[in-house]
Amino acid sequence: MNKVRYGMVGGGEGAFIGEVHRMAARLDDSFELVCGAFSSNEARSMDSGKALGLDEHRCYADYFTMCEIEASLPLEKRMECVVIVTPNHTHYDIAATALKHGFHVLSDKPATATLKECEHLSWLLEDSNLLYGLTHTYNGYPMIREARERVAAGQLGTVRKILVEYTQGWLAGREEDRGNAQAAWRLDPAKAGISCCMGDIGVHAFNLAEFVSGLSVTRLAAELNAIVDGRQLDDDGTVLMHFDNGARGTLVASQVCVGDENNLRLRIYGDKASLDWQQMDPNTLWLKSNIEPAQMIRTGTPATGPGAAANTRIPPGHPEGYIEAFANLYRTFAEEIMAFRDGEVIDRTIPGIQEALRGMAFIETTVASSTKGCRWLDMPKH
Amino acid sequence: MNKVRYGMVGGGEGAFIGEVHRMAARLDDSFELVCGAFSSNEARSMDSGKALGLDEHRCYADYFTMCEIEASLPLEKRMECVVIVTPNHTHYDIAATALKHGFHVLSDKPATATLKECEHLSWLLEDSNLLYGLTHTYNGYPMIREARERVAAGQLGTVRKILVEYTQGWLAGREEDRGNAQAAWRLDPAKAGISCCMGDIGVHAFNLAEFVSGLSVTRLAAELNAIVDGRQLDDDGTVLMHFDNGARGTLVASQVCVGDENNLRLRIYGDKASLDWQQMDPNTLWLKSNIEPAQMIRTGTPATGPGAAANTRIPPGHPEGYIEAFANLYRTFAEEIMAFRDGEVIDRTIPGIQEALRGMAFIETTVASSTKGCRWLDMPKH
Amino acid sequence: MNKVRYGMVGGGEGAFIGEVHRMAARLDDSFELVCGAFSSNEARSMDSGKALGLDEHRCYADYFTMCEIEASLPLEKRMECVVIVTPNHTHYDIAATALKHGFHVLSDKPATATLKECEHLSWLLEDSNLLYGLTHTYNGYPMIREARERVAAGQLGTVRKILVEYTQGWLAGREEDRGNAQAAWRLDPAKAGISCCMGDIGVHAFNLAEFVSGLSVTRLAAELNAIVDGRQLDDDGTVLMHFDNGARGTLVASQVCVGDENNLRLRIYGDKASLDWQQMDPNTLWLKSNIEPAQMIRTGTPATGPGAAANTRIPPGHPEGYIEAFANLYRTFAEEIMAFRDGEVIDRTIPGIQEALRGMAFIETTVASSTKGCRWLDMPKH
Amino acid sequence: MNKVRYGMVGGGEGAFIGEVHRMAARLDDSFELVCGAFSSNEARSMDSGKALGLDEHRCYADYFTMCEIEASLPLEKRMECVVIVTPNHTHYDIAATALKHGFHVLSDKPATATLKECEHLSWLLEDSNLLYGLTHTYNGYPMIREARERVAAGQLGTVRKILVEYTQGWLAGREEDRGNAQAAWRLDPAKAGISCCMGDIGVHAFNLAEFVSGLSVTRLAAELNAIVDGRQLDDDGTVLMHFDNGARGTLVASQVCVGDENNLRLRIYGDKASLDWQQMDPNTLWLKSNIEPAQMIRTGTPATGPGAAANTRIPPGHPEGYIEAFANLYRTFAEEIMAFRDGEVIDRTIPGIQEALRGMAFIETTVASSTKGCRWLDMPKH
Repeated sequence: MNKVRYGMVGGGEGAFIGEVHRMAARLDDSFELVCGAFSSNEARSMDSGKALGLDEHRCYADYFTMCEIEASLPLEKRMECVVIVTPNHTHYDIAATALKHGFHVLSDKPATATLKECEHLSWLLEDSNLLYGLTHTYNGYPMIREARERVAAGQLGTVRKILVEYTQGWLAGREEDRGNAQAAWRLDPAKAGISCCMGDIGVHAFNLAEFVSGLSVTRLAAELNAIVDGRQLDDDGTVLMHFDNGARGTLVASQVCVGDENNLRLRIYGDKASLDWQQMDPNTLWLKSNIEPAQMIRTGTPATGPGAAANTRIPPGHPEGYIEAFANLYRTFAEEIMAFRDGEVIDRTIPGIQEALRGMAFIETTVASSTKGCRWLDMPKH
Repeated sequence: MNKVRYGMVGGGEGAFIGEVHRMAARLDDSFELVCGAFSSNEARSMDSGKALGLDEHRCYADYFTMCEIEASLPLEKRMECVVIVTPNHTHYDIAATALKHGFHVLSDKPATATLKECEHLSWLLEDSNLLYGLTHTYNGYPMIREARERVAAGQLGTVRKILVEYTQGWLAGREEDRGNAQAAWRLDPAKAGISCCMGDIGVHAFNLAEFVSGLSVTRLAAELNAIVDGRQLDDDGTVLMHFDNGARGTLVASQVCVGDENNLRLRIYGDKASLDWQQMDPNTLWLKSNIEPAQMIRTGTPATGPGAAANTRIPPGHPEGYIEAFANLYRTFAEEIMAFRDGEVIDRTIPGIQEALRGMAFIETTVASSTKGCRWLDMPKH
Repeated sequence: MNKVRYGMVGGGEGAFIGEVHRMAARLDDSFELVCGAFSSNEARSMDSGKALGLDEHRCYADYFTMCEIEASLPLEKRMECVVIVTPNHTHYDIAATALKHGFHVLSDKPATATLKECEHLSWLLEDSNLLYGLTHTYNGYPMIREARERVAAGQLGTVRKILVEYTQGWLAGREEDRGNAQAAWRLDPAKAGISCCMGDIGVHAFNLAEFVSGLSVTRLAAELNAIVDGRQLDDDGTVLMHFDNGARGTLVASQVCVGDENNLRLRIYGDKASLDWQQMDPNTLWLKSNIEPAQMIRTGTPATGPGAAANTRIPPGHPEGYIEAFANLYRTFAEEIMAFRDGEVIDRTIPGIQEALRGMAFIETTVASSTKGCRWLDMPKH
Repeated sequence: MNKVRYGMVGGGEGAFIGEVHRMAARLDDSFELVCGAFSSNEARSMDSGKALGLDEHRCYADYFTMCEIEASLPLEKRMECVVIVTPNHTHYDIAATALKHGFHVLSDKPATATLKECEHLSWLLEDSNLLYGLTHTYNGYPMIREARERVAAGQLGTVRKILVEYTQGWLAGREEDRGNAQAAWRLDPAKAGISCCMGDIGVHAFNLAEFVSGLSVTRLAAELNAIVDGRQLDDDGTVLMHFDNGARGTLVASQVCVGDENNLRLRIYGDKASLDWQQMDPNTLWLKSNIEPAQMIRTGTPATGPGAAANTRIPPGHPEGYIEAFANLYRTFAEEIMAFRDGEVIDRTIPGIQEALRGMAFIETTVASSTKGCRWLDMPKH
């Protein structure tokens, strides 16, 4: 066994998502944290790294230094992959730096601050011949894989309607004024880019809709709202979507839905059957029709196919959750990197640069449509 | 005790909704069916009436004859109220005829085929000094009354976001070509008017959104779809709504959501708390906030207020359903008519001409907006 | 159409279950209340009857008088059936009197105060050649009929384990001391007989277990408790059961489960598949196995068989509840009586004297077992 | 940071629970696997260890050798703790060996094969002054900690009734004859001890009932069944329990409930309020009363207390599951061991030898009661 050695950018003490990434990386024992630039504050980066058991020589002041120095270490010691868990506005520079120094990239979403940056990143990636993964966490749930396989197998017939919603309540008040760092950067155009709600959660919903249906949005019309007074970015919105096979879709995303925790739900209706999945009950997938009783498909049971099975660890009825979904992406990316070491390429099953481009296009198109009074706009093709 | 005597128009053998009305009328013993014009086919009307135990002299060939003859009977014998359960295109004429002959009207929704007809009806009603009720059934559920009272009491704070959805699957196939009379008339512009899905179910969702929130839609933008090939009317649609206090809303209605039975759900988010109600689990109302545990408010429990209590018959845990909700409207309308007999006017708590006008305005505005490519349009004021 | 004419004993103003019976009788229009002895207080009986629209000559002071006078009326006018909605201790005398005067009987459960009374009643009934129905309400739910048919069709394989529970919270406090008449008589041995909890709700659970499984309990061991201080009768208990095919069962009943409304749940496990049904979500029946996804069978859908279909009024997703289940028993009993008028006998599908005997045997055996320290006792055979 | 170094006994390739322990140990990075005796087959142990990245010198042929050799290593290198994940019959010897060589013990349940063994173990432990933990996994769920705190705080009033059930379907067929090693040893008296169902899952249910209620069972009466033909040990059973404050309890456990995955549910009823928790929806705890609406208490929300908070990693709505619950026990045991290094003793919050003794007493008493025809027996005191 030879774990993938990774360095982390961001995720210092007090950050939320960095530790989630590290738990995901540890769970299946396929990644090993070897270095990091955990904070733009050097002392804090050092303290964070040491608390994580790192050698202090590999706790770096910034990601550029990290890439420079790591690239000079012996091959068998240096990191192989950079994990990016910083606010959006820094993603492009970090990813570009990593690629230029020969490191694979695993990045939190959205991929970049703008679509243009993302396109540049895609060119760099193509030139580099390296690997890029995007942690659309929900994509890693076994029942999402099951859903995708069932759509692909034609169990729904022709997909005609997609309803996807992602509602949270945590930004219903002005958390950004109350010392909540997570809220503050997400609502700050300088750090988050042109969107809060669509960039933070709408894009997850969009990713699931395209990933599970196997369809692409061709046109959309959106209304984004800043429901809470004084916000420069959207905290709420609805998007009407046309898919490339003619299917219609409605996407609702909101962070002001007080009382909602992390309600992500995907419903896909074909002309024969439909699927329904909810993130807060992630091990259940409903398959429904007008004729047969609804079927409750469950993680770990004989009814599931290879995609679900490959992302399941324990028997049915022993709930696997968010960290496990995250770990599924990590484990899969590790397999890809291990194949890369051997000069092999394996089928990509987690989101990568293509999904990065689609996500950025979605964010920019929804904002543009909303600015124009909910006008129908074409989605860029990628 | 002196039951309200009613005559029914429509609802002959084979019809669905007529028998539901009659069950609702019987449940609380406040209405008595005394006559009817159950079908445009005279023999069938006669057979239906006799099967219902009516005197054959009071089984009429058509509603006009019914109104004429009944109006000539002694006051204590003649019907007091006409119940209309025919397809949409006939509602106006029947209601107008009833009012002109001095009878109260209880009508299935939508009130008329067009907004203009509905406005005419409102003038006739005003002149008549008679009573008019509209059977937005879902309005009769105890937890809808509870929800309305809690919003009115300020428990949600300022309402900011309304999500309402009504999805069914029964029109996912071409039922209109397979001898399904219910499908056939709803999809026939000559009988249904300008909309199928919005006129049949979207308008229920709209009614609940306004009724429970106490707000009015001022503007909307809609996309309606005929998902199933060859349909002249919409079987699906999404409506973006602005409310008079600035709140935003999204309404999804569809009849092609294969596998969905009768999924009507209303979520209202304020700045303090939110409510969530689903018709298929009608005796449960959720009150949620970011701070306290979600509360599951249940029909028949001490936590409910006067509106719910007045519409509840049995102890908690003994489910009351759709017929009971319908009967709540009947019972309430009976109370109104009984007061009318005594020259009294009591507070209106069930939908009437105002809701009829709002509903017709909603249908016409969504169709107009959709025709114009999802343009924002003002809702007419009433 | 010729409704069944019935007289009611009990159910005067303030009583709960009497009005439920009347709603059930009205819903499908197959019964007509023609007389009653609504209270042991003559004036109150008279007032109750008049409030129900009865002729005052048919509001009787007591059930004996009622039976005497009604029996002297012309055949086409007199009641045909006595509905008994009084406390348990009076059931036998009323039913016996009704039968002796030539009237059918529809009785609330438990059938009598003792098993011996019930045996006497069964002999009287046999002699009378009249009809007897017992309102085990839950038996009337469509999904209970569906469950029974599926077990009978062998979908579960051999039944091996039955779990049935019926928990309520309403007697968690000393309601009997706070003017709650329902609580007072149920906890009074002079009126309720030898058991409160088992006689009031345990017997419903027992009935469902035998009815749906098609099996009979042969032996049982029980512990009954009076959890609330000072009670002479049980308010809680657990019963271990052996069925005639060797299957094992556990029945839990309690009225002190604070916070529970009317939680009646039946789970039947065969060697191939299992069923799960809950009264508070009555239109859903689960069919589960170790191999296939669980199926959610729903009232009104094409997946249901004749028993469910015959007890369903409206399309799926329009909830039918407790009153509808009750009305199903009434409608079915009316069909039986109408056939009787014509000298015909139709297949019995609602509980009758056989279920009455089984229920009384269950109550007496559980009490006896509990008194003997949870000793295993044979159930009497009937 | 200085992780706890552990060695594992059992858990070689193909075993299920060993890998779950290792995931739990890794998740929070507080344990490090340094050695193991993964199989009684030496070559397999070696292969398993190497696959886990261990130095081959620390892959041992058996646990005795492991303990001997590890005890001879330098203090800072040797393992500190033995994790036992073998079948029941070996637990005692392994734990005793570990303690005698100066190692802490973390053991899968049940603690030993007999109560007598467990008592011996408790004496050895007392003499050793070392630490012992028992992985009653479900004990590690945040909502179980929340439940315990709420009972202790008096929110339920006096506890009067406990219903606990644990039903699975995986042993509904003769899996032991089909090469299922998990089934085979659990149903083999030589390996499992005197009970399958009660020893494997009933004891978990018992542990939760005592842990959450803070009460102790004083007497019980049980019927255990071998539902599937040919089994020497129980695969099903029901236990009636009396608690030390007079409360009554019913425990149902079964492994033949076809279609059930891992249905562990605990309901505790006080005289004021009740709690309801289900393992398959682990982040929800219900608090119910007869007066207020039921409250849905959720992991990660402000409504939870210190016990839940200490066992939660991520925000509400991001499901944490079985592995996380397991990891909570590991993390807590690591904290205990780290304090031990410093000569400190911290409050025990995970199950230990006391729970081990209670569990073994429960298993033996239920078997004895069942053998005597469901006779009431006193539980031994510990």
